[in-house]
Amino acid sequence: MSAPAVLYHFAFHPGSRTARLALGEARVEFGEELVKPWEDDCPVIDLNPSGMPPVLTVTEKGKTLTLCEIDAILGWIEDRSKGDVLMPADIAERAEARRLTSWFNRRFIDEVDAVLLHERMEKPLLRLGPPEARMLREGRDALRTHLAMFEALAAGREWLAGRRLSQADLIAAGHLSVLDYFGEITWASYPALKTWYSKLKSRPCFRPLLTDRFPGVHPATWYADLDF
Amino acid sequence: MSAPAVLYHFAFHPGSRTARLALGEARVEFGEELVKPWEDDCPVIDLNPSGMPPVLTVTEKGKTLTLCEIDAILGWIEDRSKGDVLMPADIAERAEARRLTSWFNRRFIDEVDAVLLHERMEKPLLRLGPPEARMLREGRDALRTHLAMFEALAAGREWLAGRRLSQADLIAAGHLSVLDYFGEITWASYPALKTWYSKLKSRPCFRPLLTDRFPGVHPATWYADLDF
Repeated sequence: MSAPAVLYHFAFHPGSRTARLALGEARVEFGEELVKPWEDDCPVIDLNPSGMPPVLTVTEKGKTLTLCEIDAILGWIEDRSKGDVLMPADIAERAEARRLTSWFNRRFIDEVDAVLLHERMEKPLLRLGPPEARMLREGRDALRTHLAMFEALAAGREWLAGRRLSQADLIAAGHLSVLDYFGEITWASYPALKTWYSKLKSRPCFRPLLTDRFPGVHPATWYADLDF
Repeated sequence: MSAPAVLYHFAFHPGSRTARLALGEARVEFGEELVKPWEDDCPVIDLNPSGMPPVLTVTEKGKTLTLCEIDAILGWIEDRSKGDVLMPADIAERAEARRLTSWFNRRFIDEVDAVLLHERMEKPLLRLGPPEARMLREGRDALRTHLAMFEALAAGREWLAGRRLSQADLIAAGHLSVLDYFGEITWASYPALKTWYSKLKSRPCFRPLLTDRFPGVHPATWYADLDF
């Protein structure tokens, strides 16, 4: 079943992480091209009109399929696996997985990533100066609100969307694992979410993410521990 | 096949319009609850954690399924119709439909809706004062860039994602039809896109949108014309 697939990704971009997790869960073998989306000669510019990773190219029978954006990659994985890897069979859980997908794609990115990851990650990468205390505080306040909501979900369910793992878990893990690298998540305050994260972290698909290193920033001491 | 479905929507919210178009295409009969998402007692607050329309409730066999956000509604329609209404069968066209879905969900909303619809629509609704000339200019410049890109797609294809109608067309129509109501689209500059829009506008699913009226703003003179 393995296709000559190549994933263009940036290791600390949440959607790129979700792509790696989803390909790992589906046991799709893939080569990797590490890209820097902020550089003028980033190869993703020629592949995706948005200029952003993740992009997956799949060459089969001499024809190359280019999958741009995480939604296209998740959809392709689900289509080829006939609907049993990333989406639950239950109709209500499918709706919940899609609601949470939208939640991350808009609310979480706007309120948390665009503030906190901008200060902690983009500013050093783009040499935009030191983080601003006011913005860090705003991003952390928003993160706490979101985490409290995820804690409530995790407390009542096996996985975020219901009884089985879904793309919602992998999308959540893409975002939260970057924030965890930067030490932004106080897991002790969210015990059910911590259990959920520890289950995800133990899956084989997660291993490669634990060895990622950001230039000039050591990961939180617990980042790579399965027992954190 | 008709289910007792109720759509909670706001007539000039792009995602709400896409929901109406998609339900129409799929011939799902539905009742309507017109909501004002900016009001404290909006019934959507109790249904969707984001507080935003569209939300579709479907009651079958005494059980109510709540579908929050346009992606969940589109996914439910596709699931129940066994994959032949909103998504093409071709693998590359499926990927393109998903790429364009992401494009509208992030880039178009951020660069056009959040600027131009904020000035023209949200400000009067929320009594935030008159539109700012600088913001109108910025939103219109961004809109032209997006329209030029859609024109290039429409010039080479039957529909935006390829040879057949897909959710990408209905999502695009949700956004562009609101901007068209406010007279923001100079169709003569985008002949291929105009042909595409005229094909969509002639479909039965589109009719209800053409009778919508925004308080205090007449639609563009061509808004409801099938031959514009």
